[in-house]
Amino acid sequence: MNKRGVLLVISGPSGVGKGTVISKLFDMDDNLYFSVSATTRQPRPGEVNGVHYTFKTKEEFEKDIETGEMLEYAQFSGNYYGTPRSAVEKKLSQGKDVVLDIEIQGARNVKRLMPEAVLVYILPPSIEELKRRLIGRNTETEEALEKRFKTAYTELHEAPEIYDYFIVNDMVENAAIKIEDILEGERCSKSAMQEVLKQILEEAENLA
Amino acid sequence: MNKRGVLLVISGPSGVGKGTVISKLFDMDDNLYFSVSATTRQPRPGEVNGVHYTFKTKEEFEKDIETGEMLEYAQFSGNYYGTPRSAVEKKLSQGKDVVLDIEIQGARNVKRLMPEAVLVYILPPSIEELKRRLIGRNTETEEALEKRFKTAYTELHEAPEIYDYFIVNDMVENAAIKIEDILEGERCSKSAMQEVLKQILEEAENLA
Repeated sequence: MNKRGVLLVISGPSGVGKGTVISKLFDMDDNLYFSVSATTRQPRPGEVNGVHYTFKTKEEFEKDIETGEMLEYAQFSGNYYGTPRSAVEKKLSQGKDVVLDIEIQGARNVKRLMPEAVLVYILPPSIEELKRRLIGRNTETEEALEKRFKTAYTELHEAPEIYDYFIVNDMVENAAIKIEDILEGERCSKSAMQEVLKQILEEAENLA
Repeated sequence: MNKRGVLLVISGPSGVGKGTVISKLFDMDDNLYFSVSATTRQPRPGEVNGVHYTFKTKEEFEKDIETGEMLEYAQFSGNYYGTPRSAVEKKLSQGKDVVLDIEIQGARNVKRLMPEAVLVYILPPSIEELKRRLIGRNTETEEALEKRFKTAYTELHEAPEIYDYFIVNDMVENAAIKIEDILEGERCSKSAMQEVLKQILEEAENLA
């Protein structure tokens, strides 16, 4: 029986350790696929189209935004970066689970365009700990840090409206295992099981 | 941090092996609590009020239906049987996960009264296999069997509207593991994590 993959969106405030958790998750699970982003910036030496990024012109990208082909996008230094829907769809229909590592506004957009997406937000064990981790990086001015804290607070307030699941990153391995549990559960969700359900209902129909 | 338990409703068509799967699930998970049903029937010798059943008068039971204290109920041989909300609530607030083994109309009611309930439906590997299992019991007339098949088909058609998760009972142990995965995932759901979220938002508030 053919199962549809799960679209998993992972977000968290700056400093929460999201990258490390996601990397651990990929170590644990062979069915995961990292979405290849589209961008309008120039390819750098060695970057392969469709592997590192899907390279698009500004016109192509803006058309994709209009048509809903771009599940979410953002602009940095004058270039667009975003998640193309068709590539995600293809993997999901092959039964692969697709992970998107995006921020809160992107997550909101993905949920609007693909309501079956599963949205996970990573929390710090405490706000004190989040502050310690941000300060520990020691790469920013006090002003820049203060701005990061503020953004994190705002995000934490908005997150409960948007996200389906919340996990505390107390230990990287625990946090990754929890996301894996969420994923295993969601592999049995109504939307992931729709093909299986269809088949069994058809069989019932034929025998009735 | 205090976490709220998950209310897990498990249903499935007659013959799917639900009882065996639930019993395996309880072997695997120490945090589960089986809801004690209320009934208006007379206690049998050795039955303890509040352990085997909570015994109620017809008047008490009907008042509980009216006030929404009875999450779901049914009548058999002139007696009421149902699930009292207050007992379920108490366990959930202690962080215990509560399992309800009920049929589809009951599940619908529970979802209406407690929308955060997690509804799992157990599917047979195929309709042929469900038929084989029902026939294998060899305890019923052909007519009674035919009626069971019909009920199962109707249920299978209604289930996708109501249930959140679908698992196939191909092997009892696999099925129980999948329910355990669903449960682990739901322990991170927004509703299970509401206290944790509240605490972290309060901390952010105080530091802002």
